[in-house]
Amino acid sequence: MPGESEIIAKIRARTHPSGRVIVGVGDDAAILEQRQNSHVVACCDLSIEGVHFRLEWATPRMIGRKALAVTLSDVAAMGGSANFAMVSVALPAGTKDEFIDGLFGGLFEEAEAFGISIVGGDTSKSPGPLFIDTTVIGECASGAAVPRSGAAAGDIIFVTGSLGGSVLGLKLLENGYRLSAEQDESPAEDSARRQAILRHLAPEPRMAAGERIGKLGLATAMIDISDGLSTDLGHILEESHCGAIIRGDSIPIADCVKRLSSAEPEPDPISLALRSGEEYELLFTAQSEMQPHLSELAVALDLRITAIGDVTRESGMRLAREGKESILTPSGYEHTF
Amino acid sequence: MPGESEIIAKIRARTHPSGRVIVGVGDDAAILEQRQNSHVVACCDLSIEGVHFRLEWATPRMIGRKALAVTLSDVAAMGGSANFAMVSVALPAGTKDEFIDGLFGGLFEEAEAFGISIVGGDTSKSPGPLFIDTTVIGECASGAAVPRSGAAAGDIIFVTGSLGGSVLGLKLLENGYRLSAEQDESPAEDSARRQAILRHLAPEPRMAAGERIGKLGLATAMIDISDGLSTDLGHILEESHCGAIIRGDSIPIADCVKRLSSAEPEPDPISLALRSGEEYELLFTAQSEMQPHLSELAVALDLRITAIGDVTRESGMRLAREGKESILTPSGYEHTF
Repeated sequence: MPGESEIIAKIRARTHPSGRVIVGVGDDAAILEQRQNSHVVACCDLSIEGVHFRLEWATPRMIGRKALAVTLSDVAAMGGSANFAMVSVALPAGTKDEFIDGLFGGLFEEAEAFGISIVGGDTSKSPGPLFIDTTVIGECASGAAVPRSGAAAGDIIFVTGSLGGSVLGLKLLENGYRLSAEQDESPAEDSARRQAILRHLAPEPRMAAGERIGKLGLATAMIDISDGLSTDLGHILEESHCGAIIRGDSIPIADCVKRLSSAEPEPDPISLALRSGEEYELLFTAQSEMQPHLSELAVALDLRITAIGDVTRESGMRLAREGKESILTPSGYEHTF
Repeated sequence: MPGESEIIAKIRARTHPSGRVIVGVGDDAAILEQRQNSHVVACCDLSIEGVHFRLEWATPRMIGRKALAVTLSDVAAMGGSANFAMVSVALPAGTKDEFIDGLFGGLFEEAEAFGISIVGGDTSKSPGPLFIDTTVIGECASGAAVPRSGAAAGDIIFVTGSLGGSVLGLKLLENGYRLSAEQDESPAEDSARRQAILRHLAPEPRMAAGERIGKLGLATAMIDISDGLSTDLGHILEESHCGAIIRGDSIPIADCVKRLSSAEPEPDPISLALRSGEEYELLFTAQSEMQPHLSELAVALDLRITAIGDVTRESGMRLAREGKESILTPSGYEHTF
């Protein structure tokens, strides 16, 4: 296992200071250029072995990519653009060089995929599991940030992409399925399982969509789906002091969920989609006149953007499905009247 | 042990969004106002139980304060001013409410002591030890940051405060001394031991000095002493491609070290000061014509600023002491010719 200075030297060799990184890795702090008339967007997220990931489920590279992806997604959810990242990593004794190279390789890959510069961080040994904390710094035009608190009665509720895949992937991993495993089954099912597992292990933060929604002022409130559609919608409604009705049949269901819903003894796809966390899709509210702009954006980004319900004056969440309404709780549980 | 949402609610209740915190704790990311024509200063530091601190040595409040202090110090070492902080904490199972309140109490106390707003972070359970990562975001005028790389032959080497206390405090803690313990000894020695232990457990980052040195353009290179004077000077010299000669008798020795140097079987005070880490004093180089301004600053801040040597063209570090010169290695080891 290499020492801290060796790890920092490796990281430093890989960083490419851009014109906006005045001082990068290797000094006491990073010095970063900020655009005029913009606000700083800043957030951080922990990824801890045994809590957020398991070493036997993913490669070091995938663990590194996801550790940064989840924090990038938070910047997208504010309608900002991400520019810089810092990475703090505590490595258990005996961590192999290949593992460290893979982990940092994944962090750099994810950063480069979204044009982010890694500008600092910290490394340490860990007397326990592998700990990762990623910090992302970005920007948005003054006044353009999209908080959770701006939804109002009459707004339409939208979601990007499709849902249900991540929790299905998690269940498959817990049941022993692996990316590399060759299962005794039809190729179609195998591919759907692979898709679900990738959905869980390799989420793609919606950076372009979040940035454009913020820049164009399309949304009144926004969040990324990390805890599940019903829970995260609950956060928006709580901060915005209103309620919502969701049309169950409008919720976009991931292909892999549809394809496996007959093969797996799962709850129905809509229930799955309502409670599936770690999707990292954007959930947002918008005034109805924004719908044409959102359709254009969907085409421009080749990204599904689906209206799934409406914000209501009455508090609480309701689910409309097959002509009936039920109370929807943040856990995704449907309580029939 | 409270859940994550309870902890966040407590943190949120304690935060006081200032005019520059557009969105603070409780959303996906913080939105922060940045001054015009300034650069962002950003850094983070890990504090891990069993690596950086021990629960039996300090109160939760002291652990929280130091976890933020060490990161604040990095901003001072760039000549910047600190404005915002984010705090990621992973708590072992069974962590008591009082402990969590003490830890976050300390983090807030430290933030408030330096006018910093806590604007975000993350919390999680930890399957291992207590894990803290603090991120500090600040600013400096464009072009005013003081990197490690600007020292040049002819510059004078300065250090704030006095040295040696932190490593002495660490040694006392390792030998079983505690802040609360009443030792069978003279009151003078007891007070010196207490001072040394506090120096280790409750360092004071030199925020005002760092900010003023940066703003007034007084230094050519700067670092904070976290690894020890000799090691950290080595970092400046490596980045600046030059060498140095240190005058041993000029190094400011902490009072507690002087008072205990006869009572404790320690190496001599100067050797102790050369290798004492976690001092969080500022070590910097400046052109000789800046000396009057530095004297004024020392008076204005009521802070000792001492010239301890010179930057040389020849690489390597030398120590001049009692009319003799020896080679000084980054560990503080003196190798006689």
